[in-house]
Order: sequence, then structure tokens, then C-alpha cells
Amino acid sequence: MTDARFGPDRRITLAGPLRLDGGALLSPVDIAYETYGALNAARDNAVLVTHALTGDQHVASAHPRTGKPGWWARMVGPGRPIDTDRLFVVCANVLGSCMGSSGPATLNPATGAPWAMAFPVITIRDMVRAQAMLLDHLGIERLRSVVGGSMGGMQALSWAATFPDRVESAIVIASTARHSAQNIAFHEVGRQAIMADPKWRGGDYYAHGDPPAAGLAVARMAAHITYLSEAGLTEKFGRRLQARPDRPDGAKSFGFDADFQVESYLRHQGLAFTDRFDANAYLYITRALDYFDLAEEHGGTLANAFRGSATRFCVVSFDTDWLYPTGESRAIVHAVNAGGGAVGFVELSSPFGHDAFLLDSPELSRIVAGFLDAGR
Amino acid sequence: MTDARFGPDRRITLAGPLRLDGGALLSPVDIAYETYGALNAARDNAVLVTHALTGDQHVASAHPRTGKPGWWARMVGPGRPIDTDRLFVVCANVLGSCMGSSGPATLNPATGAPWAMAFPVITIRDMVRAQAMLLDHLGIERLRSVVGGSMGGMQALSWAATFPDRVESAIVIASTARHSAQNIAFHEVGRQAIMADPKWRGGDYYAHGDPPAAGLAVARMAAHITYLSEAGLTEKFGRRLQARPDRPDGAKSFGFDADFQVESYLRHQGLAFTDRFDANAYLYITRALDYFDLAEEHGGTLANAFRGSATRFCVVSFDTDWLYPTGESRAIVHAVNAGGGAVGFVELSSPFGHDAFLLDSPELSRIVAGFLDAGR
Repeated sequence: MTDARFGPDRRITLAGPLRLDGGALLSPVDIAYETYGALNAARDNAVLVTHALTGDQHVASAHPRTGKPGWWARMVGPGRPIDTDRLFVVCANVLGSCMGSSGPATLNPATGAPWAMAFPVITIRDMVRAQAMLLDHLGIERLRSVVGGSMGGMQALSWAATFPDRVESAIVIASTARHSAQNIAFHEVGRQAIMADPKWRGGDYYAHGDPPAAGLAVARMAAHITYLSEAGLTEKFGRRLQARPDRPDGAKSFGFDADFQVESYLRHQGLAFTDRFDANAYLYITRALDYFDLAEEHGGTLANAFRGSATRFCVVSFDTDWLYPTGESRAIVHAVNAGGGAVGFVELSSPFGHDAFLLDSPELSRIVAGFLDAGR
Repeated sequence: MTDARFGPDRRITLAGPLRLDGGALLSPVDIAYETYGALNAARDNAVLVTHALTGDQHVASAHPRTGKPGWWARMVGPGRPIDTDRLFVVCANVLGSCMGSSGPATLNPATGAPWAMAFPVITIRDMVRAQAMLLDHLGIERLRSVVGGSMGGMQALSWAATFPDRVESAIVIASTARHSAQNIAFHEVGRQAIMADPKWRGGDYYAHGDPPAAGLAVARMAAHITYLSEAGLTEKFGRRLQARPDRPDGAKSFGFDADFQVESYLRHQGLAFTDRFDANAYLYITRALDYFDLAEEHGGTLANAFRGSATRFCVVSFDTDWLYPTGESRAIVHAVNAGGGAVGFVELSSPFGHDAFLLDSPELSRIVAGFLDAGR
């Protein structure tokens, strides 16, 4: 017998209300999500996978707009490190995003029009609370693990801090317990690029069918640089030029086209992004990231976030990640230790910078699989 | 008796033509420049100071628009490291800029209207060739030294490579012999931000009195992050919030205003920049920087740029400069050595990243003064 709550491409409208960190009550709360594998009779094999800034619920299924494989299909599936032959995997689009969960692009019930900038500002903890409501709906009291990279790792940390009794273990990859001044600065550039685009119209662009794609593309380009290592960029592109015809007089054909391969790559990244993402959602989620400071939520001491916690932690960083450098992961490890908790830590070597967590990494796969098996 | 060629706030129109690396002939060539101190009878005490991307000829005099002191007033002046009591200092606005030298904002003699994007693409070597024309006009055959930081350092390198007989010594600070893929990527984000601004109008905005300030501000914000170290940003701003009233209900007043100090700092940097700089000039100069690859100009081997050169080099880097990291300076040092030349190298410690070269640094002052004195 099938349970309509489980499977790919699900949407649920929960009555709420959800009390947000900013004080607003959100009701109803739409959540788009997917599940993989089967929840066992004891309901103790559930793993929540949390996604990054521009990720979505399609962790292991094709993206409905781009047709590309799920963003972590190499990590989640039958026989994969997060093995859906044994585990029941849930992945939900975060609050504030644009893939079906409540966010600025969804309808404000009070007006019948898209929320736009009237949507309340949300936090990472608000995303986590919405996920907890979803798990209640799915009949899952306790998670075997919550696993995420980047912003997904922040959600994993926030889960462990907010619902310690519901989280047996947490895997935190390429992440941080708080956004640094430089992190905030890069996001602010992106937000300013979007808001400077006249097509943004104060956020009310939905009815015009002409969204602020140019501003969003610039925001994505700026962010994309931070996802890659300098060495990785050099290895991938160096100063190589696009193929172009020689000029008959032998002089250099200097100009403002995308002469360098790295330029056309970035332009492509920026443009492709605008096909699949909402500019206002980008504003809201970057804001949630910038506000994230787990220590500040716990009296200024990060260890307080984990004090007395029975959650086991696995923290993984990449040596060339300059967005959330290894030092940020170490700070988490020290805090869990200081709080008396159990934590393992690995720094992996990769040329690919922050993006490494999304790419093929046998070491990361082994770590995730091994950690999920341990204690069984 | 005064010589009208010498002094503050000079402008000269040289007939040219100047043959540019891109093949075009530029004629006439306007150059805005300043001189400080007196050229001695032997004409052998001239020092050329070269400026960075958004710098200008006002190295030690107040900026005409902002009223701020010259950008290197702590380095150039009576009794300063570049001592105008003994040295004759020349500083010229680079070709392609917007402070009086020929660039996209100056008039195209063929049309009587501003060049805009019809201005030919220029290179660092083109800037240097224009400076050489100015020195010819000033009656200076040979420079005691050419001194510059960042793009100014690239000009110093290009001077030594292009006119080895005219350069006794070169001081290259916080610079590089070629722009990396990451350098190009950041500039491309800035250019796309400008060109995405509808007010850019394909570059033809001069007649409208409404330049693409929003795009230029975003470009400046993105670039500004690269001028500062992560540690410096953290020390200066951390996650400190702007002063704001508490909400009566005690909830967080989350929003999209510049909540964090680093945000309002960046916004201020972006906006202030648009008062003093031309968007098209920003496009042209960043392009010149991105094309800069001194090795590529010399058969792919950087040492060839300095082979047999009698120029003495002094290379200085800052340990927290991630725009042009110390490794880039080391590559210059190795190349000069490989070419059989004389070079000294110092890596200075500073929390301020790339910007350190413009800030108070007693060590940098001692190095510059000492190097200029040596060999006298």
C-alpha cells in the first residue's frame, strides 16, 4: 500500500502557523520535498538531506527545469553512501526558496498576489523549524542523521542545536557556524546587483514576466568565484583565450567580448542560473545566511549550542575552500568538544574549492557512508 | 624662471600618433599630469610614479573632486621616502582613464563627441608608451626610478621591459606580471555589472547626464572586497550591526537594509566611487589589466622581459594580499634573476591585504627611501 506522503515531487501545505525568528507568524506553510527509500517499521532509518543556497529538493532526481541529474545523485541512492536501500531519505526545498516551498514567489494569502518583498525575512533556524513540521507530518520523530554541505551544513548544525532530541547524528560539510564579514560582503554585492536592476521593481516583478535576470546573473557570477579555488580556476582556465579568428594585420583583436575562457564560463553560469532561480528568493536566502551565527543564538558561546547534546557530529572541510575555510570547521569541532559532545573531523584535499562537496570525491563518500554505518 | 611644463595640474596635448598594441593609431594624445620638486641640471633625478586602477595624477595634491589628500601623499613630498627636495617626481593619469588623459570620456576628434566604446582598447604597455611620450616632452631621457603599486607596479615592470635604457631602477609593490584567471573573473563581474545597467546605453551615456552609477557602484563593491584581507575585514567590521532601534516586541528586526557595518561600508565605497570615476574608463582599464601578461609579450618566458637589463628592481609584497599574492612577486623576482638582473625582494606583514600599499607602512617607507638612496 502506498502512502501519498512519500515519493518524488511531493508538496504539502501545512496549516502552521510557523513562528519565525523575526516575529512573524507564517500560515500556511508550503513545503516541496522528495523522499527516497522506505521508512522502516521502527521509523528510525530517516536521514534528512539539507540543501545549499541555490539547491533544491531534487537531491537524487532530475531537475524539472534543467533536466540535469539531482545535485547529490552521487551521494544519495541505492548502494550510494546515503544508501536508499537501507535508509529513508527526505530532502525539502528550504523556506524562502523558489522550488515550491513558501517564499517570496509564492502567493500571499492575504492578497492573492506573490509575497515579493512582503515575505517575512527568514533565518536558517526558520528553515529548520519548517523541516521539523514536515517531519511531524511524515511521522518521523527522530532522524538517524541530518546531512548537508554549505548552507546545508548550517541547517544540520541548527537542527542539532534546536532539536537535539530529534537528531542522532549530523554531517556538516564545507560549512561554518557563522557568516564572516567577507561572506556578508560578497552576498551584499550580489543583492545590490539584483536591486540595482530596474527590472527588480522593488521586488514586484512577477506580474511583468520580465524578471531582473541581468542583476541576478551578476550576483551569481560574483558568488560563483567564491565557490572555486584560485588554483582550480587557473587549472581549468588559466589565461586561455576563446577561439577567435586572427586579424589580417596580425594585431591583437582586443575587445570587450568574452575573450578569456573564464569570462565566457562565468557569463554562462550567470545566465543559466537565471533560468532556474528567482531573484527575490536569492535575496532572502543570502540574507538568512548572513544572519546565521549559531553562537549569537546561544549567548555568544558556540559550545552552548551543543552542550549536553547526544548528537554525534561529523565535520568535513576542504583545504582549498576559501568561502568557508577549514578554520571555520575547526571552530565547530572545538565547540562540540567544549560542550562535551562527540565529533569527528576530516580536512580533505581537493583542487576545487568550496564546490568540492558537490563533486565526485571518493574520500567524502567513504566518510559519509562510514559515519552513517558507525554506531549501528 | 618657471617652465610651464612643470608643476601641479598640467595638461598637454601631444600630436602623436601613438601606435597602440591593438593596432590603432591614437592622435592626438592628451595627458594630464603633475610634477613635484625640481628637475636638476643633469636631468637625472626624475622619478615616475605610476598609479593604480582608480588612481590619478594627484599623487601628492588634493583630489579636485573629493578634496582628499593625494593618494600617496605619505610617500611623495619634501622629506618623504620619494623626497621631492631631491627628486623630480612625475605622475600622469593613465591612458584610458578619466582625469584628463585620453580615454573613453574625452572627445573623439573624428566626431567631436566623446569616444565612449569607440575608444581603442588599450594595454598597460600603451599606458607606458604614452608616459614615454610625456617624458620626451618634459625633456627627461632617463628615469632614476619608476615606482608603483598594483597596476602601477605593472607599469613599472612594463617600463623596464619596454624601455630598459630609460629606467635605472623600478619599484614594484603589491603587483604581478600577469593577471590570473581569478583576477580576470572579478573584473568580468564588474564589467558585467556596468554593462547590465540600462543607463550604460552601450557606453553612450555622456549626453544624457545620467551615467550607469548603480552598475559602477556594484563593480566597485566587488573589487573592493578583493582589496581587503579577510582578517582585515573581520577586524574592522566582524559581524557588527549598524545602530538601530530595538523592536518593541523584542523580536529581531531582520530586513534588507544595510544591517551589518560591512554592508554600509561597501555601499558607501560603491557610491562614493561613482562621484569620481567614469564607468567606461573602468571598463577600459580593467580590460588593460586583464590583458596584462608580460611573459606572453616576450615569447612566453617572463625572464626574457628582463634579459640583459641594467635596471635594478625592488619588489615588495604583502602577506595578506590575496589579489596579487606574494607568489606573484616571487615569480617576478625569479624571472629577473633568471634574466641575469639585480633584484631585491621583501614580503611585508600587514593585516590590510592589497590595500596595504596605500596605507601607512613605516617598513614600506624605509624600503622605498633606502632603495632610492642606494647606488647614489
